[in-house]
Amino acid sequence: MPAKRDYISNSVIRRLPRYYRFLGDLQKMGITKISSGELSARMKVTASQIRQDLNCFGGFGQQGYGYNVAELRSEIGTIIGVERRIGTILIGAGNLGRAITTYFDFTRYGCELVGIFDVNTQLEGEKMADLPICHVSELTAFCERNKPGIAVLCIPEESAGNVLETLVSCGVMAVWNFSHYDINLHFDGLIVENVHLGDSLLTLTYNVNNRKTAE
Amino acid sequence: MPAKRDYISNSVIRRLPRYYRFLGDLQKMGITKISSGELSARMKVTASQIRQDLNCFGGFGQQGYGYNVAELRSEIGTIIGVERRIGTILIGAGNLGRAITTYFDFTRYGCELVGIFDVNTQLEGEKMADLPICHVSELTAFCERNKPGIAVLCIPEESAGNVLETLVSCGVMAVWNFSHYDINLHFDGLIVENVHLGDSLLTLTYNVNNRKTAE
Repeated sequence: MPAKRDYISNSVIRRLPRYYRFLGDLQKMGITKISSGELSARMKVTASQIRQDLNCFGGFGQQGYGYNVAELRSEIGTIIGVERRIGTILIGAGNLGRAITTYFDFTRYGCELVGIFDVNTQLEGEKMADLPICHVSELTAFCERNKPGIAVLCIPEESAGNVLETLVSCGVMAVWNFSHYDINLHFDGLIVENVHLGDSLLTLTYNVNNRKTAE
Repeated sequence: MPAKRDYISNSVIRRLPRYYRFLGDLQKMGITKISSGELSARMKVTASQIRQDLNCFGGFGQQGYGYNVAELRSEIGTIIGVERRIGTILIGAGNLGRAITTYFDFTRYGCELVGIFDVNTQLEGEKMADLPICHVSELTAFCERNKPGIAVLCIPEESAGNVLETLVSCGVMAVWNFSHYDINLHFDGLIVENVHLGDSLLTLTYNVNNRKTAE
């Protein structure tokens, strides 16, 4: 097995969760091994791309045998760190925040939801995902005590700047950003994943309105 | 004003919603005009890229003046088709579906939510976003009557194939896909936007677990 590389490019990293997901699907279907050719056809990525990507992590295939699905998935999971439990807090217990905490089993993604915060004092004490909703004024004390690594941001753009300053000063290093606030413009060192649902829907709308009809 | 081009590349299309969003933010801040240089700095896209992109749609800037924010935003909105009302249905009234319908004002994105469907007979008659939840068995009749263009898919992967066959046979042309089902693998003609929240969180997890520490 070739050695793992120290440096992995961003585009390979972006494909890792997709490999992980596809391999999980294969497992569910009871498929135990797969060739890079088959995997390539399913994922619409070239077979050589797949071989190159997986070689970054030490390679797993055997010539003429293909990949062991369970082994490969577990190895990619370890690389991502799915078995860890990064302390994660939610800021914003509105509809979206509520959906994400209810819909998502964070532990499947290497995270553990440990706190929920909102500006609305009326929500205080209510429970979401088995956690009590706390007022944002308790954020600093909570972070100093519990050292969460990730914050899920489900608040309006206007409130994001202040909250982020608090989070950064408390040592939160990563943000899963559902707000419209452009974090990287203002906070350079943070690890950020933006989920711009509106952009996604607008792209769909554009494509529907501008589709080429068959006639 | 130069003529609009007939063919617009996919990568330009993908940037349109972002321009639209940024220009909306500028409007909210009371900014009425902006140079391509300033817009470039804010959006972290090169100024020449911005000029090229906007030229695809006929260009809007004046040398030495910059872009009129309201005008440019409104023009991009028209290109996307935000003032239209594409009939949109939600399949899957679970937590995620509920969040999306409550969180999203579809009319701001050129769509109008007209129907909600779920397999769970116990939800029948309940209301979400002012619409009654219908049983999926009513889907075909509803689509024949109302001709929705877009379906939002918030159902488990296992059920997606069957539902999609129904949707396609009823003339639905686009899917906003929150399920793990790989639509393009099975349905070639559909317009699809995938939202893989899990992939996004796993990328964040990887980056937290593999960050370079400053020491």
